[in-house]
Amino acid sequence: MKIGFIGLGNMGAPMAQNLLKAGHDLTVYDLSETALAQLNRAGAKIAQSAAELSSIPGMEVIITMLPASQHVRSVYLNQGGILEVVAKDVLLIDCSTIDPQTAREVAKAALSKGNPMLDAPVSGGTGGAEAGTLTFMVGGAKKDFERAQTILTTMGKNIVYCGDSGNGQVAKVANNMLLGISMVATAEAMSLGVSLGMDPKVLAGIINTSSGRCWSSEIYNPYPGVVENAPASRAYSGGFGVDLMLKDLSLATEAAKFAKQPVILGAVTQQLYQLFSSQGNGKLDFSSIINLHNK
Amino acid sequence: MKIGFIGLGNMGAPMAQNLLKAGHDLTVYDLSETALAQLNRAGAKIAQSAAELSSIPGMEVIITMLPASQHVRSVYLNQGGILEVVAKDVLLIDCSTIDPQTAREVAKAALSKGNPMLDAPVSGGTGGAEAGTLTFMVGGAKKDFERAQTILTTMGKNIVYCGDSGNGQVAKVANNMLLGISMVATAEAMSLGVSLGMDPKVLAGIINTSSGRCWSSEIYNPYPGVVENAPASRAYSGGFGVDLMLKDLSLATEAAKFAKQPVILGAVTQQLYQLFSSQGNGKLDFSSIINLHNK
Amino acid sequence: MKIGFIGLGNMGAPMAQNLLKAGHDLTVYDLSETALAQLNRAGAKIAQSAAELSSIPGMEVIITMLPASQHVRSVYLNQGGILEVVAKDVLLIDCSTIDPQTAREVAKAALSKGNPMLDAPVSGGTGGAEAGTLTFMVGGAKKDFERAQTILTTMGKNIVYCGDSGNGQVAKVANNMLLGISMVATAEAMSLGVSLGMDPKVLAGIINTSSGRCWSSEIYNPYPGVVENAPASRAYSGGFGVDLMLKDLSLATEAAKFAKQPVILGAVTQQLYQLFSSQGNGKLDFSSIINLHNK
Amino acid sequence: MKIGFIGLGNMGAPMAQNLLKAGHDLTVYDLSETALAQLNRAGAKIAQSAAELSSIPGMEVIITMLPASQHVRSVYLNQGGILEVVAKDVLLIDCSTIDPQTAREVAKAALSKGNPMLDAPVSGGTGGAEAGTLTFMVGGAKKDFERAQTILTTMGKNIVYCGDSGNGQVAKVANNMLLGISMVATAEAMSLGVSLGMDPKVLAGIINTSSGRCWSSEIYNPYPGVVENAPASRAYSGGFGVDLMLKDLSLATEAAKFAKQPVILGAVTQQLYQLFSSQGNGKLDFSSIINLHNK
Repeated sequence: MKIGFIGLGNMGAPMAQNLLKAGHDLTVYDLSETALAQLNRAGAKIAQSAAELSSIPGMEVIITMLPASQHVRSVYLNQGGILEVVAKDVLLIDCSTIDPQTAREVAKAALSKGNPMLDAPVSGGTGGAEAGTLTFMVGGAKKDFERAQTILTTMGKNIVYCGDSGNGQVAKVANNMLLGISMVATAEAMSLGVSLGMDPKVLAGIINTSSGRCWSSEIYNPYPGVVENAPASRAYSGGFGVDLMLKDLSLATEAAKFAKQPVILGAVTQQLYQLFSSQGNGKLDFSSIINLHNK
Repeated sequence: MKIGFIGLGNMGAPMAQNLLKAGHDLTVYDLSETALAQLNRAGAKIAQSAAELSSIPGMEVIITMLPASQHVRSVYLNQGGILEVVAKDVLLIDCSTIDPQTAREVAKAALSKGNPMLDAPVSGGTGGAEAGTLTFMVGGAKKDFERAQTILTTMGKNIVYCGDSGNGQVAKVANNMLLGISMVATAEAMSLGVSLGMDPKVLAGIINTSSGRCWSSEIYNPYPGVVENAPASRAYSGGFGVDLMLKDLSLATEAAKFAKQPVILGAVTQQLYQLFSSQGNGKLDFSSIINLHNK
Repeated sequence: MKIGFIGLGNMGAPMAQNLLKAGHDLTVYDLSETALAQLNRAGAKIAQSAAELSSIPGMEVIITMLPASQHVRSVYLNQGGILEVVAKDVLLIDCSTIDPQTAREVAKAALSKGNPMLDAPVSGGTGGAEAGTLTFMVGGAKKDFERAQTILTTMGKNIVYCGDSGNGQVAKVANNMLLGISMVATAEAMSLGVSLGMDPKVLAGIINTSSGRCWSSEIYNPYPGVVENAPASRAYSGGFGVDLMLKDLSLATEAAKFAKQPVILGAVTQQLYQLFSSQGNGKLDFSSIINLHNK
Repeated sequence: MKIGFIGLGNMGAPMAQNLLKAGHDLTVYDLSETALAQLNRAGAKIAQSAAELSSIPGMEVIITMLPASQHVRSVYLNQGGILEVVAKDVLLIDCSTIDPQTAREVAKAALSKGNPMLDAPVSGGTGGAEAGTLTFMVGGAKKDFERAQTILTTMGKNIVYCGDSGNGQVAKVANNMLLGISMVATAEAMSLGVSLGMDPKVLAGIINTSSGRCWSSEIYNPYPGVVENAPASRAYSGGFGVDLMLKDLSLATEAAKFAKQPVILGAVTQQLYQLFSSQGNGKLDFSSIINLHNK
């Protein structure tokens, strides 16, 4: 297939590589010359702008992977943006993690120009992007979702349909808010138990067979030494960074403001990650939040 | 075995019944004449006071199941209490859920009189007490734990050794604090997703295969209709009550003060349950906290 | 002076009336025909658009009073907006309460077109707007502030210079966040004291001569009957509404995200007002938050 | 008057000194020999125990100033305690800061032995204790309050009657909870304003003439350099320590649990002081909490 890919960062570059490996005819665009050169060496064509990429004849699908809402808005809606030049029926897939409102607004603008659009944020990190094992949470029309299946399967393992436009973002934001709260909660429970004299492995074992059990306690326990392969057991290196969790919690609390929905623990957790980040821990794995409570 | 049982409330009465069914020689004591009469009809002997029960010749084990720390302190330590009259080596098992400090203090007093003591709080609710499927979290000396195994197995299914004296209480308080926070977090995530347009079952499905997964989302989802047998699907009747969760969160925050351990989300969650209880919801299942956020 | 005024809502209309009363040559614009007609009867000229108003020859000052950031952005920056047509050196004064970032961005755009601009959000409510006793918190160049003094004094009593562009908004957002937290804190302290058996007037008297003293306890006590003229003593009618406080707390937490500044109590307070508003109390005075804690 | 004084710590010792200076016939007791010797040199008689002090013939008033609830309970209620030996009608005044429940319980026990009792916690710190300018918040019967006036006036300046037994503690706990929240709120508002570009003195000036005004912003501003004589301007030395504020917030949240009264901001503030104390800041002035948010 003839595919365009805009946004070759830590996530976008390996995703584009996987599309190349699968034999697709790929044209890429990014502001970084280095990133473009790297994909070019791997076999991708290079465009000089989003507009040039979007106006390539015969283009079937354009994928974007951008840092934040304002970039998505700008790449799609601004002068010289995708929607100004793209041919009708080209399928647009935005894999950025952004707020649901922007996702819906851009998708509506696309549809009014004759372009189906999906929001398809991912989870799985750079490891998953490289291995092609990402999870995609997809919002948009069912038939467009089906059209995108083959391509998404090239880059990921779980492709989940979440319903109408924007729902991919909603699912991601709701899941990650719950994850962030659970991680702080696990950190507090482990710290409390240990400070009262329990062995951390014994405590984790009890929690994981009881009603306190969660992904953060079982798979990713923040207490060092409890789960052998978790970031906590390698000084919180690698994994999903504090600043990325902070970004997702900020998206969640903003979406909650928009929906007039109270999310009290979500807001406190966003603040705790802000506090911890401002103390210089933004690059550590997000399970390091346990250190806010200790020492 | 010759066993004494003090405290025949909603939990204690069915636990005592299971000891009778297993053929033990049981003497019971409670302030309620009705409760005593009921156990008497089932075959138990009746004592007129804790002291009378504790001074029965040949007694091997005394089990207590009381509402709160002050009752445990009073039944064991006061004039006319167990420790004043009980013979050396009688094994004492307190199944009440109380703060770890009191548990340790009482166990120390028991030991100094020559009586081994275990703290063995339970989870599993009245249903588990009746079915004999409770989980016991046990703190104390390993050899006393082993001595108690047969008896506890008569009343429960999972008998977990948590380490030194008080650790049974620590494990329970840490697990239940994590449970309470996770429940509010799940309520917020589900409410946020639905208010932004997602189907609750689809959202729960995504969370339960992702990193937000927890016991509260999988087994006990607070959104009505998502889990067929959960209290949320029967108007929050039955289950584990709001006021019981409030009690456990209060124990957790008190234990945290004692240990000088910050538990920020734990404290906020304790307050949210206090707020929700004071609005008249104390008897509903604790997953009904989702209604604090909605409507 | 020849003045233009855009935005004739609950605040803007009486502010414009005060300019008329002071004898200024006033042209007004608003989307509402009713609002325009009312000012017209009072002696104001009417423009059919922001652009028409902005291109009136000899115009000296244009004042805007709009609901939110997006309206300010649109009225100044969009096609057909003020900056497209306004003559150089016309002084622009935005009295809307918006986020500091937008205020700075719009002021920068104005300056690049040759127009000095001030942000001048107000406090004092509709009562202050009618009586001409508003407080103006003003950000921008000192000499522009001096140029605006006469006009602002027509509409207000305290005209406070806050420093560079955007600082008027910063001062308002910081003050109102502190106000919102203090109000909830006063509500909690009064409720706690009364629930433990104290007379509310005695308690308020003690607090107001001690270190707990604040504007919310002294002037605007949320407990009914403590301050005779406060909204609490007239069923929380009149005053500064819950939804307006919620808007200001949302601006504060957004500005904090932008500045990467933790504001933990600010975020919790924003959530509590969101919760209370979503229970149907948005139009009551903001001191009614005490009812979230009681009964 | 013939007065007994038990508890010669940082507060109690200078209070006792002021009683001596006023010419009272004073007998003191404390566990510390050093403290006793110091008062002895100043002219006080020494007792070897609380019981010895309490059984001195002709004793008119006994004052206690102790660290926490358990000490008050023990000194009054235990074997060898005051109530076991004290003559009828001796007036008992407890100046300790403790929870209202304990205060009421001890006062009730005293009354049943024929002794009127007042709870009279103070504010004003060691400086106020030395200068004799403390504020006393007094709970108990009005006629006992009147009887205590002369003595309390020797040690303090403001003697405030708060109503029935325990209300002195209630007033203190409610005021100090409000103080603690206001301090964190002021810290957040100042930090937010400064991080967004405002001069701290200008911001404080605006807040102090607006609705955000509070004792913490006016008299005791936590931002260095804003109030010349505040602890913030001398590296947070002197003043009211973090650990003392933590103690009072813990009393407030415990009293709230007892009263089933939600105090959400109170609980979060208690946690923030716990967090800040556990990072090694317990001895700094409590306004140093601003450093939790900065750097």
